Amino acid sequence: MMSKFSSLKQEVYEANMKLPELGLVLFTFGNASAVDRSEGVFAIKPSGVPYEDLKAEDIVILDFENKVVEGDMRPSSDTKTHAVLYKHWEKIGGIVHTHSTYATAWAQAQKDIPIIGTTHADHLAFDIPCAPPMTDKMIEGNYEHETGFQIMNVFEDRNISYEEVPMVLLGNHAPFTWGKNVDKAVYHSAVLEEVAKMAYLSLQINPDAPRLKESLIKKHYDRKHGADSYYGQ
Amino acid sequence: MMSKFSSLKQEVYEANMKLPELGLVLFTFGNASAVDRSEGVFAIKPSGVPYEDLKAEDIVILDFENKVVEGDMRPSSDTKTHAVLYKHWEKIGGIVHTHSTYATAWAQAQKDIPIIGTTHADHLAFDIPCAPPMTDKMIEGNYEHETGFQIMNVFEDRNISYEEVPMVLLGNHAPFTWGKNVDKAVYHSAVLEEVAKMAYLSLQINPDAPRLKESLIKKHYDRKHGADSYYGQ
Amino acid sequence: MMSKFSSLKQEVYEANMKLPELGLVLFTFGNASAVDRSEGVFAIKPSGVPYEDLKAEDIVILDFENKVVEGDMRPSSDTKTHAVLYKHWEKIGGIVHTHSTYATAWAQAQKDIPIIGTTHADHLAFDIPCAPPMTDKMIEGNYEHETGFQIMNVFEDRNISYEEVPMVLLGNHAPFTWGKNVDKAVYHSAVLEEVAKMAYLSLQINPDAPRLKESLIKKHYDRKHGADSYYGQ
Amino acid sequence: MMSKFSSLKQEVYEANMKLPELGLVLFTFGNASAVDRSEGVFAIKPSGVPYEDLKAEDIVILDFENKVVEGDMRPSSDTKTHAVLYKHWEKIGGIVHTHSTYATAWAQAQKDIPIIGTTHADHLAFDIPCAPPMTDKMIEGNYEHETGFQIMNVFEDRNISYEEVPMVLLGNHAPFTWGKNVDKAVYHSAVLEEVAKMAYLSLQINPDAPRLKESLIKKHYDRKHGADSYYGQ
Repeated sequence: MMSKFSSLKQEVYEANMKLPELGLVLFTFGNASAVDRSEGVFAIKPSGVPYEDLKAEDIVILDFENKVVEGDMRPSSDTKTHAVLYKHWEKIGGIVHTHSTYATAWAQAQKDIPIIGTTHADHLAFDIPCAPPMTDKMIEGNYEHETGFQIMNVFEDRNISYEEVPMVLLGNHAPFTWGKNVDKAVYHSAVLEEVAKMAYLSLQINPDAPRLKESLIKKHYDRKHGADSYYGQ
Repeated sequence: MMSKFSSLKQEVYEANMKLPELGLVLFTFGNASAVDRSEGVFAIKPSGVPYEDLKAEDIVILDFENKVVEGDMRPSSDTKTHAVLYKHWEKIGGIVHTHSTYATAWAQAQKDIPIIGTTHADHLAFDIPCAPPMTDKMIEGNYEHETGFQIMNVFEDRNISYEEVPMVLLGNHAPFTWGKNVDKAVYHSAVLEEVAKMAYLSLQINPDAPRLKESLIKKHYDRKHGADSYYGQ
Repeated sequence: MMSKFSSLKQEVYEANMKLPELGLVLFTFGNASAVDRSEGVFAIKPSGVPYEDLKAEDIVILDFENKVVEGDMRPSSDTKTHAVLYKHWEKIGGIVHTHSTYATAWAQAQKDIPIIGTTHADHLAFDIPCAPPMTDKMIEGNYEHETGFQIMNVFEDRNISYEEVPMVLLGNHAPFTWGKNVDKAVYHSAVLEEVAKMAYLSLQINPDAPRLKESLIKKHYDRKHGADSYYGQ
Repeated sequence: MMSKFSSLKQEVYEANMKLPELGLVLFTFGNASAVDRSEGVFAIKPSGVPYEDLKAEDIVILDFENKVVEGDMRPSSDTKTHAVLYKHWEKIGGIVHTHSTYATAWAQAQKDIPIIGTTHADHLAFDIPCAPPMTDKMIEGNYEHETGFQIMNVFEDRNISYEEVPMVLLGNHAPFTWGKNVDKAVYHSAVLEEVAKMAYLSLQINPDAPRLKESLIKKHYDRKHGADSYYGQ
């Protein structure tokens, strides 16, 4: 039986499979999803399924209220976080959650990743924010749903845009990334991990490593993302 | 000649072979075992055999008093430690010992691994204990047998349960892990190594990285292991 | 249609493909070029093309004023930096730019890599210079063109020779390396990354790790590069 | 034309090829040799030949005075060091020199690797010595020949035996290891690299990580190497 969500499932399946290939997940510590806004649904990895056993038809389809639209398996335990972000951030096409080593180390340290290099500025013009842990009440309540608000709150508090900053660290937990589509979200997870590793090493070499100058941040960000960008084909 | 322990040997063989695949052992620095409680025996890797030469039929079968029941090879030099744990901890199905790099580094540092992230809390709700080195008398006596008691003592002293904390560091030495079966024990060795690496990095980034809040420990542990767990299929 | 630059393109294609193989670039974070001085042109990777999609015929041919001589694709965004170096440093045959992890960490730290080991002295007899970030005016102007001068300035300021020191760190940015041909430039990128990692580790172990004695620098450099060198065939 | 040294060359070829496989050498930064004491010769890698191009017939045969007995290629630039050790340390069968990352980092830091874990004690019962750099006179003289004496001197000064301590760090330079045969020497290079990494990490976690107790050193060393050893088959 053909599903009208076949290509969406295939896309999400392939994105999930890239996570272990890129060294971003161990066992089942991660998940990727993509949205179909015309249908008001998103597709996500089933919970706890090892990547070597995962098949495209296992991918679960849900609406933004977390109702399963298609699929026999239980969706990722982080599904509600994805739903909140898709519902409120309308320009997101895909979301990835990993526990990649260096990004998670920064999250556990409860530190923003400071912008100290152009590799960072090639992708975003701000420190990578680390959201403070939730209140006990939020944790004990609808935890994964509240995690979506934990993410949105830090963007609101700092007055930064999810379109310009496609990644966040959750204090004590791990990163989430997103993008126009799920491939971009996977890409941002890999970039985050590398930027996290480089920043860690730089600060070990020089605890006073200087922040990137504003002119350099602007130059590198704009040449890839600005109105007159000249990177790529 | 068929052995009645063929499937037990095969299971233990496969678990041992996963250790180098997961990057947890170099040369012969590790061993995995599984128990058959109905027969009162366990199966373990032979001593000093390189993984590339290991065959399922080489696996040695012993009872809990370390008497060889089947097998032509000398069992792992750590066999007596496994025997003590199988004898006293009745719900263990498999045990793994490695010298994996980051876990061993913490053991050599004689430090517990503090619970500072949800990756840790997804698997256990306590700091990973580091057992103090044995007395000279224990070391000079029946060393590997005493190692079993070194492990059990730290659980008794801290009033923690081996069912809730499936791993330990031996001060100056290296980790042991266990589980309901040997596959789970292998899984716990890999989780321990990753958690050890992340905790190391977090404390390098921020020596004052805060301990996980109790509410967050409880949430993450319970969603995977509690009465109302909702992780996996 | 055969191009007279076919072999140059092939050489540059192969050099670019070595960068991910050697673990020196993630995604598109790097580029390699080679010069044909008799024709007054150089060949460089097209901008933003993933290595797995790259083909030899995609390589772009330009003159030293950055005019495209052959090729349908937009050249690397770093092309102007390569052009400046080829124009002014007449004995360079190839140039490589990467964001390799440890070298970039030193660049972000804005620190020279001190010569503390013979692995370093086997390749160059000086600290690896870190060029200070450019002025805002240079950054906001013809950025990639000015980057060429940022590199040349640090060599002039310190009175060192690009023939003896085939590598540089750009403060806040990442490394450039070069050589008699593009293969040597790739080799120097790999050597730099390893030397950067070793120096990082040594200084973590001993922040007062002593600089190499002059006699030892001279011995190791000369046995590979001096008039009476006796390394290799 | 068959050589009477064919099997010796093959053994040395295979040992050399293991070095990049085990991640211990980059490019040509290492060499392995083996001795045939009945013939008074040893076999060593030719200088500067990349491992992917190396063939068994390229291996060079020399006597202990560094006279080439067989082979068309120039032997390793470190040949004289091997010759000195074979001449004076009569129970050595093979020697390996690498610039492996963590061992070299300790050598550059000019620090002994302290014995803080049983992985170390499983192989040797002493700190791994770091020989101080040579005098300028020795460096400017017959350097690689003097390197052999630099190694022997540190063993004499500390009153330790090359049979019990099969490895050394050369201050500012890198490690040498040896063994009964060249396979053991390769094995010791890999063990040293892992012990160097673990000790580095332990001291980052706890700068006051305690030295292993004498009873534990003795236990672990003796169970593998003592008169009543019970490790292996």
